[in-house]
Amino acid sequence: MIEQKAKFVVIEGLEGAGKSSAIELVKTLITSHTGKAPVCTREPGGTPLAEKMRDLVKVADETDPLCDEAECLLFYAARAQLIANVIKPALADNTWVLGDRHNLSSLAYQGGGRGLMPLVKSISDITLKGFKPDLTLYLDIEPKLGLERAANRGALDRIEVQKIEFFERARATFLDFAAKDDSIIVIDASKTLEEVHQQITTELTARLS
Amino acid sequence: MIEQKAKFVVIEGLEGAGKSSAIELVKTLITSHTGKAPVCTREPGGTPLAEKMRDLVKVADETDPLCDEAECLLFYAARAQLIANVIKPALADNTWVLGDRHNLSSLAYQGGGRGLMPLVKSISDITLKGFKPDLTLYLDIEPKLGLERAANRGALDRIEVQKIEFFERARATFLDFAAKDDSIIVIDASKTLEEVHQQITTELTARLS
Repeated sequence: MIEQKAKFVVIEGLEGAGKSSAIELVKTLITSHTGKAPVCTREPGGTPLAEKMRDLVKVADETDPLCDEAECLLFYAARAQLIANVIKPALADNTWVLGDRHNLSSLAYQGGGRGLMPLVKSISDITLKGFKPDLTLYLDIEPKLGLERAANRGALDRIEVQKIEFFERARATFLDFAAKDDSIIVIDASKTLEEVHQQITTELTARLS
Repeated sequence: MIEQKAKFVVIEGLEGAGKSSAIELVKTLITSHTGKAPVCTREPGGTPLAEKMRDLVKVADETDPLCDEAECLLFYAARAQLIANVIKPALADNTWVLGDRHNLSSLAYQGGGRGLMPLVKSISDITLKGFKPDLTLYLDIEPKLGLERAANRGALDRIEVQKIEFFERARATFLDFAAKDDSIIVIDASKTLEEVHQQITTELTARLS
């Protein structure tokens, strides 16, 4: 039996796309495939220090609004910390990693949504030096529908209260990157939960074996 | 009378070089020259959010050691926030700004000290886009002497506990940048407080008028 190298799988998607239930499903699929639960991460965050950075980008401070550059740099500081202290050590130990968001979110939200693509791409290149997920499942949904679902969950954070056009631009960027990168799979998240989970299972199983 | 444009003046130097008393002196000199106290900043920090970022780089977390990339990105996130919300608004209002450290510290400590100059220069270029102080007074001191003075002040932080070679490399970088940039003045901080203050007064007065 040839032992398979552990992989880094990421779930991406706009608010309300169904990431949480997709993560539970993928966690189960990876566990039954490898016999071992993956290390689960969330971004921004996932280490004690990165979680503190998450707090800084999530909570709006009216007296000291977070500038675009600081927001980008904080996201990448948190990501660098998570890669160094969680993701890379797990993969080196041959444990799979399942990420709730990763770099594609920064490219979509800050790069596409805020119109800062040159800044985000530069920081991304400098910080990650080519490190990327083996597989990304992008749950695609109309922003209007996703935000309605997200609003039903409770109060929106500093990112979630952006105008609909922000999310339209972010979605276009997700799809644009997916079209150019075979490791990013688009899942139609507007379908029923059963259909979405069936598509995820099919796509993941094809790539696991 | 021709009204003079407000300037951004920065005090730099290794631990124990005498920055605090130099800042008090320069504050007094600027105030008497312009008739108005400068806005005083410290880095990392200087805004509510940037102070929280300062806490993250200053306090060591044994369970989640801050990686080099995250440290650099945090310093620049804090700097971007300070420039956007404090330094540029003050200068636009024609108020002078007096900084306790700025970009040269990142170049010296992370670039020179930690040996990460390509990373630091790239992030610096992307984030600051050419913004720099009008005048920097660099208080030069032998690391050994400076650290002895700093240790007498109390407990050392995460940066201050580095090996002496770290500070030797940082000092060499400070001097290297000063040699190539007319806006950086080297002050011999090993002399008596009176002599140091005399030199600062002479250098600053020559550039104020």
